[in-house]
Amino acid sequence: MLDTMLTNVREKAPLVHCITNYVTVNDVANIVLASGGAPIMSDDSMDVADITSICGGLDINIGTLNANTVPSMLLAGKRSNDLGHPVLLDPVGAGASWMRTSTAKRIIDEVDLACIRGNISEIKALTIGSATTKGVEADITDIVTDSNLALTVTYAKEFAATIDGVIAITGAIDIVADAHQAFAIRNGHPVMSKITGSGCMLSALTTAFLIANPDNHLMATVAAVSMMGLCGEKAAVKMVAEGVGNATFRNYLIDNIFLLEADELEAGAKVEEC
Amino acid sequence: MLDTMLTNVREKAPLVHCITNYVTVNDVANIVLASGGAPIMSDDSMDVADITSICGGLDINIGTLNANTVPSMLLAGKRSNDLGHPVLLDPVGAGASWMRTSTAKRIIDEVDLACIRGNISEIKALTIGSATTKGVEADITDIVTDSNLALTVTYAKEFAATIDGVIAITGAIDIVADAHQAFAIRNGHPVMSKITGSGCMLSALTTAFLIANPDNHLMATVAAVSMMGLCGEKAAVKMVAEGVGNATFRNYLIDNIFLLEADELEAGAKVEEC
Amino acid sequence: MLDTMLTNVREKAPLVHCITNYVTVNDVANIVLASGGAPIMSDDSMDVADITSICGGLDINIGTLNANTVPSMLLAGKRSNDLGHPVLLDPVGAGASWMRTSTAKRIIDEVDLACIRGNISEIKALTIGSATTKGVEADITDIVTDSNLALTVTYAKEFAATIDGVIAITGAIDIVADAHQAFAIRNGHPVMSKITGSGCMLSALTTAFLIANPDNHLMATVAAVSMMGLCGEKAAVKMVAEGVGNATFRNYLIDNIFLLEADELEAGAKVEEC
Repeated sequence: MLDTMLTNVREKAPLVHCITNYVTVNDVANIVLASGGAPIMSDDSMDVADITSICGGLDINIGTLNANTVPSMLLAGKRSNDLGHPVLLDPVGAGASWMRTSTAKRIIDEVDLACIRGNISEIKALTIGSATTKGVEADITDIVTDSNLALTVTYAKEFAATIDGVIAITGAIDIVADAHQAFAIRNGHPVMSKITGSGCMLSALTTAFLIANPDNHLMATVAAVSMMGLCGEKAAVKMVAEGVGNATFRNYLIDNIFLLEADELEAGAKVEEC
Repeated sequence: MLDTMLTNVREKAPLVHCITNYVTVNDVANIVLASGGAPIMSDDSMDVADITSICGGLDINIGTLNANTVPSMLLAGKRSNDLGHPVLLDPVGAGASWMRTSTAKRIIDEVDLACIRGNISEIKALTIGSATTKGVEADITDIVTDSNLALTVTYAKEFAATIDGVIAITGAIDIVADAHQAFAIRNGHPVMSKITGSGCMLSALTTAFLIANPDNHLMATVAAVSMMGLCGEKAAVKMVAEGVGNATFRNYLIDNIFLLEADELEAGAKVEEC
Repeated sequence: MLDTMLTNVREKAPLVHCITNYVTVNDVANIVLASGGAPIMSDDSMDVADITSICGGLDINIGTLNANTVPSMLLAGKRSNDLGHPVLLDPVGAGASWMRTSTAKRIIDEVDLACIRGNISEIKALTIGSATTKGVEADITDIVTDSNLALTVTYAKEFAATIDGVIAITGAIDIVADAHQAFAIRNGHPVMSKITGSGCMLSALTTAFLIANPDNHLMATVAAVSMMGLCGEKAAVKMVAEGVGNATFRNYLIDNIFLLEADELEAGAKVEEC
């Protein structure tokens, strides 16, 4: 099934509108191209509605948001909703500042999201104070391990229900859930945290998968998350074998997205329902 | 002749002021350095006039324009004109949004341009509604092939005449024309479209060539376009030989600009007058 | 001693708030990660005080400053001062435009700086008109060589005294000085000037060293500067051996920061008091 998800990306070449931070934007664009999609970056309020209209979906990443781009995120999100395009939110740094947390929450309130992807700290910051999740949340630490996996899955499903979409919590163990079903994904490598942009790249890649697989956003997200982890593993093996470091690793990660065949994804994905 | 053009870049080390998008700006800077030039990025309206004054020419790229950078583009363009510096416009995404199309047209109206470089869709978007080109334009598809080459060359020459500069339409076949003469360039490789920034990099590279070769902007543009394509071919051969992907290809492309000798450009350029 | 400085970075994993230009920001983030630190980029005036509060220090780089980011630099700098965090200023392009020179001077006036790092032209531009340094300055050319080294060291010490911090003047010979003591560092390779961002990366790396070594900012800066130069040498050897160019060199430079062991730094640093 994951192989079909990737084949759909390669065949449909989804156009992804990215409002994303300037730190990792080049890698984000190149990973979308590597996957078989095509990116368009645009973040001015005069430009975003036109651009999102010719794309298939929208990736909103709040990594370096500013006073000018926040309205653009809302405008583009609403236009995407009107057009029935999937919208993904990457709440980079939610919890670390008032501006990031409040902007992410405002986007959740005003835009229908197909998916939210972040690390456990960012995702938790989005629900603090929410009646639905307050109880569970208090017991979840900021690292997902086997010992708190069940609790985190319950939390993810509850949050997914409130947005009627998919929640992807990524880290050493990734969790992808909608209201009814959840998966743990055990691909990936620790060096992925030694480059900037692993998360940003995954969010844009996921958006490409969401666009190309409109009938199953849950498994589309599972496919993107496991593909990223699997390509990270392959790139790490090559990095170690060659005695290079994190900068070259970053290139190999994107290279592997470019090179990965659909059947390799199906064979290499470590996905379990939970 | 192309070899001399490149030698001039290497010897004169032209300083290129780039107002360019944040997606590909790092690659743009590194390719200018690789060519032998030096880039300065500056896009605030308080800063651009000073910066453009110490440079030899200006590359205006509208890839991620915003309300703050549009006035900077006009200001810098006019100052460059006053100083007699060549100005190149890269109309990224013209035709895809009202803001991009209208900004590109406004720059064409208000700034004397030495060169406009874009793909066929972007270039066509600049002349829609123009009496001069309307007739021809209707018959040009969005891919330049041998079957529509003659028509596209006629169109490029007419457009070049209206700006009294050089038009570079790049794609599988590149066309470089002024009002009187045109060349088709058949260097390049399809993987160049699988990285972000091939066009942006070429525009900045072309600006370096324009500065270093003030007496022949037409052949300076031909040299830059063929150099980019030739280095793309070399990088693609290495990418395939090593089994790597688009991210490493991007590095090899810039590496080859850094490494290419003038006589290699002369020998490898596939340029024909048409 | 330099080995301990690096070990402290690796062990303390300092969080570095970077307000830096969009040209080299990705490399800046990856080199901080390579060193063992962690970067957070944030430049909106609504966001910077929160972000700088959770970090250990601040890197202010004026490379592509604009009307929105100048107030953010001042706000973040003052908040960092209140918290006792070290603040580094990289006056990119000071002397090249009124906006850059005046912004850099304003930051120096309003923020207590632990370190200023720039090339000789940029550093000189900061003191033009200053009674303290005017005399010496007139005799310093824009390249530091053995013949003007003593004069430049005197100038650096005087400037360091006025900010009560460290001045790092980097180039073929690097000078690191506080009011009382100065060092010349002879690591590095000319190809470092053929990539964009060598200076920006060094500034962020230095900030990580300042945070992790609060008791000795002078030697922390010496360690960062010599590490950058040493890793540049290693990367250049590999670049030449493999016949690649400046883009791949850039990756190898960051890779070497990732790979360098503390004892290699101690052994390879070419540092002399002067």
